[in-house]
Amino acid sequence: MSSAIEQARSLIDLAQTSLNSALSHLKAGALDNGRVSGSKLDEKQLACYELAYCEAEVTAANVMLDYSQKVRADKGGSDELRIEEALALQYSAETLQNTRARFNTRRGDYGFSREQLAKTLDSDTVDDFINLYLSTEKLEAVGKTILNNEGYVGEYMLDDEKAMMRDSFRAFASDVVMPLAEHIHTKDLDIPDEILKPLVELGCFGLSIPMQYGGIQPDDSEDNLGMIVVTEELSRGSLGAAGSLITRPEIMARALLKGGTEDQKQYWLPKLAQAEPLNAVAVTEPNFGSDVASMKLKATQVAGGWVLDGEKTWCTFAGKAGVLLTLARTNPDMKSGHKGLTMFLVEKPTFPGHAFAHEQENGGTITGKAIPTMGYRGMHSFTVFFDNYFVPDSHVLGGNEGIGKGFYFTMAGFAGGRIQTAARATGVMQAAFERALSYSKERVVFGKAIGEYQLTLVKIARMAMLLAVSRQFTYHVARLMDEGQGQMEASLVKLASCKSSEWLCREAMQIHGGMGYAEESPVSRYFIDSRVLSIFEGAEETLALKVIAKALIERAA
Amino acid sequence: MSSAIEQARSLIDLAQTSLNSALSHLKAGALDNGRVSGSKLDEKQLACYELAYCEAEVTAANVMLDYSQKVRADKGGSDELRIEEALALQYSAETLQNTRARFNTRRGDYGFSREQLAKTLDSDTVDDFINLYLSTEKLEAVGKTILNNEGYVGEYMLDDEKAMMRDSFRAFASDVVMPLAEHIHTKDLDIPDEILKPLVELGCFGLSIPMQYGGIQPDDSEDNLGMIVVTEELSRGSLGAAGSLITRPEIMARALLKGGTEDQKQYWLPKLAQAEPLNAVAVTEPNFGSDVASMKLKATQVAGGWVLDGEKTWCTFAGKAGVLLTLARTNPDMKSGHKGLTMFLVEKPTFPGHAFAHEQENGGTITGKAIPTMGYRGMHSFTVFFDNYFVPDSHVLGGNEGIGKGFYFTMAGFAGGRIQTAARATGVMQAAFERALSYSKERVVFGKAIGEYQLTLVKIARMAMLLAVSRQFTYHVARLMDEGQGQMEASLVKLASCKSSEWLCREAMQIHGGMGYAEESPVSRYFIDSRVLSIFEGAEETLALKVIAKALIERAA
Repeated sequence: MSSAIEQARSLIDLAQTSLNSALSHLKAGALDNGRVSGSKLDEKQLACYELAYCEAEVTAANVMLDYSQKVRADKGGSDELRIEEALALQYSAETLQNTRARFNTRRGDYGFSREQLAKTLDSDTVDDFINLYLSTEKLEAVGKTILNNEGYVGEYMLDDEKAMMRDSFRAFASDVVMPLAEHIHTKDLDIPDEILKPLVELGCFGLSIPMQYGGIQPDDSEDNLGMIVVTEELSRGSLGAAGSLITRPEIMARALLKGGTEDQKQYWLPKLAQAEPLNAVAVTEPNFGSDVASMKLKATQVAGGWVLDGEKTWCTFAGKAGVLLTLARTNPDMKSGHKGLTMFLVEKPTFPGHAFAHEQENGGTITGKAIPTMGYRGMHSFTVFFDNYFVPDSHVLGGNEGIGKGFYFTMAGFAGGRIQTAARATGVMQAAFERALSYSKERVVFGKAIGEYQLTLVKIARMAMLLAVSRQFTYHVARLMDEGQGQMEASLVKLASCKSSEWLCREAMQIHGGMGYAEESPVSRYFIDSRVLSIFEGAEETLALKVIAKALIERAA
Repeated sequence: MSSAIEQARSLIDLAQTSLNSALSHLKAGALDNGRVSGSKLDEKQLACYELAYCEAEVTAANVMLDYSQKVRADKGGSDELRIEEALALQYSAETLQNTRARFNTRRGDYGFSREQLAKTLDSDTVDDFINLYLSTEKLEAVGKTILNNEGYVGEYMLDDEKAMMRDSFRAFASDVVMPLAEHIHTKDLDIPDEILKPLVELGCFGLSIPMQYGGIQPDDSEDNLGMIVVTEELSRGSLGAAGSLITRPEIMARALLKGGTEDQKQYWLPKLAQAEPLNAVAVTEPNFGSDVASMKLKATQVAGGWVLDGEKTWCTFAGKAGVLLTLARTNPDMKSGHKGLTMFLVEKPTFPGHAFAHEQENGGTITGKAIPTMGYRGMHSFTVFFDNYFVPDSHVLGGNEGIGKGFYFTMAGFAGGRIQTAARATGVMQAAFERALSYSKERVVFGKAIGEYQLTLVKIARMAMLLAVSRQFTYHVARLMDEGQGQMEASLVKLASCKSSEWLCREAMQIHGGMGYAEESPVSRYFIDSRVLSIFEGAEETLALKVIAKALIERAA
């Protein structure tokens, strides 16, 4: 281990120790009869929000340090720092700087005195490390290396099989998706069959479905990494017209594997793997974004099944989907909260376009209307209205046993949605990064290519760093999830990557000058698309407060 | 003066002193034979960029402190802090925190040792001030006050005449512009006459034109404040469909007043005041965003005038404009740089829509094609092609005297464009802020309106602060410009306000959850529109480096 990496590791450990102490401080203040009180914690939301980001960054820094060591061990290299090491050190310095600034600004919230910080995160050692690895000279040098090496931000560290998958989906994104992406966006079109059909053939929809159920995932283990690699590469082509296609089957497959009866698995999973039908997820309701326990869509028992009445919103791809994974309230007493919810597999005919309507023989109807959005186009996000819509008993996820367990099955799917979303963020970042690099070589101002200016090089260094971190953090979480772990990390990487993606796309646009604002420049679309990432699959505030900070504080010492 | 404000002022003075010392340090390193060398300065771009923002923030903090004192003196109030004071203190604390973090991260660039910083910007006094005025409790309290007072962020401090102007344009924006804005954006339409005609009648286009030339500005002084107030209010209605209408006549009027012959002033200014014709500004060329001195559009002398050949881009409103203020190269030797440039008043017929073509009797042509953009819609930004296009001698700005002076006349117009843009940013911020407030009262998650959560209140407090700062800083610069000063400050406020506007619109959108991404929510449009502000009228990098930092360092001790 190089001494620099060794030092970075010890300083990041110090940051983790300070962070843990802050979490303990918050816990002590939020206890009510020995238990963490949600309302007391709400009085410290700002601190919780900051600590969630802090945990995400510290975790990511450790992932990057591990990764850079593994690359060194596997690939060797000269005595000079490899780019992976340079980026790991830069990210460690940024993490320390962010953590120090957070604690310095609101010491009281975290229970620190100025003296304590001076001995720990605000010590000369930390300060020197930050000043060294965020120095203008270092950043400029990293930017130059990246630009000279055509945007190489480090080894992917994938095995041969995954590397092949990556190559073929990357080529598909470049050759098929990218040329269609602008047109789909500006005209708000459906994803065309030119994209959809080859993806089915490439096995894309069977990635998280075990072989025994007709997918391509080995039966003895999950293959989250494969799915992540494919999603990232497709998202590089287009977030809405390709990169988000796997998210929905991924969520539904997880829910089925967690809670479905054997019959349901055997019936549905092979169909999902073939995208016959495509599926959608109907969980969110108007005014209840991520507040799943408050869902109201009513399911009433009738002979042979249930009828659904009510409304779901932000149901992406509902038109083209033949089945909607739908969360409904089977216990009308709202006090039952999340225990009154059940998951249904709701079949419907498929429709292209921005609206649909279907009437059953019993007179029940399902109708949908796409919500025009500023970006993330291609799949369309629908509001779906259920009116006396009949679903047979066989389509209750988990059968009789599944009644009242819809919330848990939803949660099982959501972790998949989060890591999916981090991979989507990485793909969009990669695309924007490539455009920023090529434009910075092309565009000349005041007599020089803008890529020759220090400020551009510094921006490129930070872009490269965030891109590498996002990718390796996502890969790391995928590997954890293969081992049945990584629930918390899936939330952390979602939080960090989506934020990074917004910044990176903003700067990629800025590098383009006026042209960045033109629709013909893909960066304008990347900017708009990246904006949705911090909103869906767990809005950043909900994720930071209700998922991450809550769990961190509950488990704090 | 309250003791808190007094303390803030002394700490902001300290920040200014540290900043000046950093500027001197940079100057010393960039000297070449006693003069500041551009290429040496380019080796310190990151530091220059950071210091430009730093200067903008410190200046804004002083403006806010002055303003809060003036409000206290004029309006009094109870012993409690007025909201203006609370926001001034909060902004001072944020400025100190930003400045401290910048200097702490890259001490070497600015010539500071850790010991020096510990005695100045990183002292216990500064730290206590930051921790007090950025404390969660203070921010939450400010957020609550703002929410309870329907978004009141402090007195405007306008005289009765300006207050009346503000009210009438505000009503026009609410009643006429806002209901049309979404449609104009989503369909990429021309600004309709329903908006254009009443604005002519309201005198909007004559705001920066002296009465003696048919405008409504008193002859003895400029009235930048009036123009700023109107632009802000119209931009609240829509950036592209109303708020940017005054920018172009403003720039052309300034150029005419600075460099036009008496005949030209008498001929053109009354026409501009009546928007007959509308005008556009043709300066930017492809690949030469803000690099005016490299402009290439060729002007060749012929009998009775000149013919123009070449291309201009990002010429907003070129279709509907009857005259283009056009910068062209009259000295073909590129080595003549900006001294080879001349300004022409190029007449053309007016055309609605996204493309135009016109042929003169001599066979010369002018054609235009709108560049589809992600936002800022309504005026359309054109690429304009000149082919042997004849312009008579009478249309050379400044006549024979004006040949070779085009660059200076451009600069005269640009300061107007910058303060205009800051006012546009304030207007967009105000609109987004209003939506964020109303939605935070409406939307319920986890059983409470999101406006009741601490994190939302903290966001609202920062929004309110940035909005008030942007407005008062812009007003301040307008008053300076009335006195013939404020060139530097116009750049500073442009830099600061455009950045603030991006953040504010992003958070206003985030408060809306999924609905923020829907086109039917105006915040989605505000987000997209605000993104153009840091790109046009001086891209942030050019402004920070080539305009602000360069001048600050040249004048540093």
